Amino acid sequence: MPHALFERHAATLESALSAIATRGYWSPFSESPSPKVYGETAMADGKAAFDALLGQQFLLDQPGITGWHGGEVSPYGVALDVSYPVCQIDTLVAAAEKAMQPWQQAGLEARTGVCIEMLTRLNRQSFLLANAVMMTTGQGFMMAFQAGGPHAQDRGLEAVAYAHREQSFVPAQARWEKPQGKNPPLVMQKEYALVGRGVGVVIGCGTFPTWNTYPGLFAALATGNAVIVKPHSNAILPAAITVRILRGVLSEQGLDPNLVLLSVATDRESTRSLVTHAKVRSIDFTGGNSFGQWLLDHCRQAQVYAELAGVNNIVVDSTDAYQDMLKNLAFTLSLYSGQMCTTSQAIFVPASGIQTDLGPKSFDEFCADLAAAIKRFLSKPEVACAVLGAIQSSDTLDRINQANAGSLGRVVLASEKIANPEFPKAEVRTPVLLACDAADEKAYMEERFGPISFVVKVADTHAGIALSERVVSTHGALTVGLYSTSQAVIDQMTQATWRSKVALSINLTGGVFVNQSAAFSDYHGSGANPAANASYADSAFVANRFRVIQRRWHTE
Amino acid sequence: MPHALFERHAATLESALSAIATRGYWSPFSESPSPKVYGETAMADGKAAFDALLGQQFLLDQPGITGWHGGEVSPYGVALDVSYPVCQIDTLVAAAEKAMQPWQQAGLEARTGVCIEMLTRLNRQSFLLANAVMMTTGQGFMMAFQAGGPHAQDRGLEAVAYAHREQSFVPAQARWEKPQGKNPPLVMQKEYALVGRGVGVVIGCGTFPTWNTYPGLFAALATGNAVIVKPHSNAILPAAITVRILRGVLSEQGLDPNLVLLSVATDRESTRSLVTHAKVRSIDFTGGNSFGQWLLDHCRQAQVYAELAGVNNIVVDSTDAYQDMLKNLAFTLSLYSGQMCTTSQAIFVPASGIQTDLGPKSFDEFCADLAAAIKRFLSKPEVACAVLGAIQSSDTLDRINQANAGSLGRVVLASEKIANPEFPKAEVRTPVLLACDAADEKAYMEERFGPISFVVKVADTHAGIALSERVVSTHGALTVGLYSTSQAVIDQMTQATWRSKVALSINLTGGVFVNQSAAFSDYHGSGANPAANASYADSAFVANRFRVIQRRWHTE
Repeated sequence: MPHALFERHAATLESALSAIATRGYWSPFSESPSPKVYGETAMADGKAAFDALLGQQFLLDQPGITGWHGGEVSPYGVALDVSYPVCQIDTLVAAAEKAMQPWQQAGLEARTGVCIEMLTRLNRQSFLLANAVMMTTGQGFMMAFQAGGPHAQDRGLEAVAYAHREQSFVPAQARWEKPQGKNPPLVMQKEYALVGRGVGVVIGCGTFPTWNTYPGLFAALATGNAVIVKPHSNAILPAAITVRILRGVLSEQGLDPNLVLLSVATDRESTRSLVTHAKVRSIDFTGGNSFGQWLLDHCRQAQVYAELAGVNNIVVDSTDAYQDMLKNLAFTLSLYSGQMCTTSQAIFVPASGIQTDLGPKSFDEFCADLAAAIKRFLSKPEVACAVLGAIQSSDTLDRINQANAGSLGRVVLASEKIANPEFPKAEVRTPVLLACDAADEKAYMEERFGPISFVVKVADTHAGIALSERVVSTHGALTVGLYSTSQAVIDQMTQATWRSKVALSINLTGGVFVNQSAAFSDYHGSGANPAANASYADSAFVANRFRVIQRRWHTE
Repeated sequence: MPHALFERHAATLESALSAIATRGYWSPFSESPSPKVYGETAMADGKAAFDALLGQQFLLDQPGITGWHGGEVSPYGVALDVSYPVCQIDTLVAAAEKAMQPWQQAGLEARTGVCIEMLTRLNRQSFLLANAVMMTTGQGFMMAFQAGGPHAQDRGLEAVAYAHREQSFVPAQARWEKPQGKNPPLVMQKEYALVGRGVGVVIGCGTFPTWNTYPGLFAALATGNAVIVKPHSNAILPAAITVRILRGVLSEQGLDPNLVLLSVATDRESTRSLVTHAKVRSIDFTGGNSFGQWLLDHCRQAQVYAELAGVNNIVVDSTDAYQDMLKNLAFTLSLYSGQMCTTSQAIFVPASGIQTDLGPKSFDEFCADLAAAIKRFLSKPEVACAVLGAIQSSDTLDRINQANAGSLGRVVLASEKIANPEFPKAEVRTPVLLACDAADEKAYMEERFGPISFVVKVADTHAGIALSERVVSTHGALTVGLYSTSQAVIDQMTQATWRSKVALSINLTGGVFVNQSAAFSDYHGSGANPAANASYADSAFVANRFRVIQRRWHTE
């Protein structure tokens, strides 16, 4: 008998499987925070549910609780004062491992059905999650809703679909009958069990605590593993809400809720003891190179799926839509104050300038025009606040100040602090735009996370493409862009990205931006340049999270 | 227009795809060295072709040749005196990388068709390969033919089928159309290019230079990569023949033959500089823990697929076919003098003995009966020579002598040297069987490669299953076996193997042996215990060898 949740979500699964095969637009979770979709009271209910969490202990019925810890500081200056249970690591890992056995025995369909049910429940709580994401990360509300809610859920479902597809290929059993000439055949019965690799740890980041967590979380779960979520110290709440919802679904289904656990770290050592635990067999990480490299070096007992720093870049050769190009770039550089792993940091422009539909533009004109486009886009304070959000970390504020001071390059547009009337303590900053020469590699050729971008003067388009390829190959990138009216240039850049292995967006001048990737259609990360060793999502993201254990015996 | 070789082999591919989905018996390459299958003169032709290579330079038109190297010593005592071109590593890697571009651009169908053509050509040379494998590894002729020829080709084809299936899931292009309410939709054209991860190195082992090489070789090739084959210093010839055949197919097809290269190492340093080369992005290795661990530690620029040492074991609880069980075990322990990564090393038997169809048998009776079965099986010298082959390395001879001396446990059956009339200098040895207590972990709990096995006295069946699980979890295993007439015991052992993640063979008493795995049906290695981090073959074996590089642009 098929599992009830598998039956309930069969159509969603079929659509998701079709979407990853055809990669056209598809999403089961509406990105519109409309009352028509989510209900008339959804927004208010979500806000109320969020407010009710503030100043409280966040209860989770986990084993091994030794104390409480919180301390998240909202970039909007709002007091959060939520504390979370701190649990003994050995106890968490043992509980997680124990929970894997019934999860394995439930079978593939049950696991898939339960995972989709989890995502559906998360979707219903999108407004609660949006508030939690907004207030911990500094994202504007709309982004917090979309990226933190439905888009993150899409990425989770995408991982479930890949996991289901790969596991479905393994037959439960086979009859193996080998002819022996005139003698009777050799006949064996064989059984193939899908077994999760082992306890997974998913390490969240401070800027996208759900979007960057759900792919690994659901890939690991759907392939038969337990998952311990280790959130960023400043974005615990979205993870805690997620874990609570998932544990609720598990309990309802009579499964062990300890399949999904929250591990709040009070210090670096506790995180290290978690990720190096012998029973932890997979780690998903999004964050900086320093800890990411440490994980890769030290967690040899586990498969590590890591998204690290990069230097995203754009080559500008020519355009037949100069103003639209500038608008598109202005939006990309402004969105969430550039605190996205996909935001462009370096824009390579020929020293001799570019050809446009508005005539030739010199390098300096391009710099000035881009600065003006950013200023114009952010000229209305309410738009600026909604788009920019707030600065998530003091490190990013320091980097902005450093850039503003001119030490990294000529300041074309200085970052400004903007007042947010709704949140007077919010740290809102406009982008800083710098100009420098291609030779100033120390300035632009390392990730400077935040709203800091460089217009880099290159000898010509050819040199810009070569530089882009070298930057991606040596420092990594999740996204590169190209503006050109020449098919030859487009082909040349395409081939460069095949070598450096990075996704390319060409001539974006409308409502799609280089820093955005759509689940089921765009691969996030190629998994083959230094910015990430894995991709959201593909077969490789799921295929090694489970193993097939066979047994065989003679039969008639 | 489909590629001609893809069309030619379409039916084979379809059958292979069906076989990996259903996992019943299938093979396109006959394991019978019969003239009816391979032609009346095939055996003589293969022998003549082999003889013609002896004492010669093995010509390969590779770039960067700096000298010649050989020195293979045949375990049969036959003079080989073949020398191979030694090539500069940087030159080889650069040539391999260059060859990847036309290979990528040829497209998936061409790559798949060419790979299957390569395997078909290898199949036609199975007798030549059998002679080369036999004379370099010490395998008996029949095993050298089957495992070195058709079975190796099967494993290569299996990898090609997995690679084709995974790559087929990626659409070449998509139209992405996102509704925008009352506004026109956002429409993008997207293209997805399959790009090989980068140059692959496949490191061969001394005992199965084709069977353990073809999976990685063809997985890497079929996913768009160039491959440099680095053979074991004593089993170069089968690899060199393989490389020459593959280069011939590439040249015929107008492709760059440097897609497949042979790298003969004159010293350890040259191998290390090859595998740590920045452009080498995947490594397939079969061999010992020492170099395997070195690869995993030092080749961080590459994906490493490693098959290492293990301690394969069998739990004997009870049987209703005592004599057939003993016969089956005697064959397993004798075949190729136990020089297989799948040969059982430890047999766990309860201290109180076992129940059988011939009445209860004490621990000592079991030991004596197994020894007698081995002696009986090898009593005819011609059978013994055919089954045992010859000892491949002096290290193995040393280990046999050490075991014979009784330092590792009570000698139940001593290894004997047997004369091979056809090859008077051949080092032929019968198995040595030792008995010890479960507490003597130092004796049986590390791999002692060769015909050295232990009957280990355990408290009871339960303790034997627990010990098997611990041995597999801590030291690894490719195979475990169980003999029991109790379903409860079978279930208990099954669950133990789910936890320790190893393939289980139950009650083998006929023509299937625990040390044999059949392509398309049996997974070789689970990829999740210390004996191997990958499996022949599954999705994970191929999915991360290629990456998808996308580009997107606005369209109408």
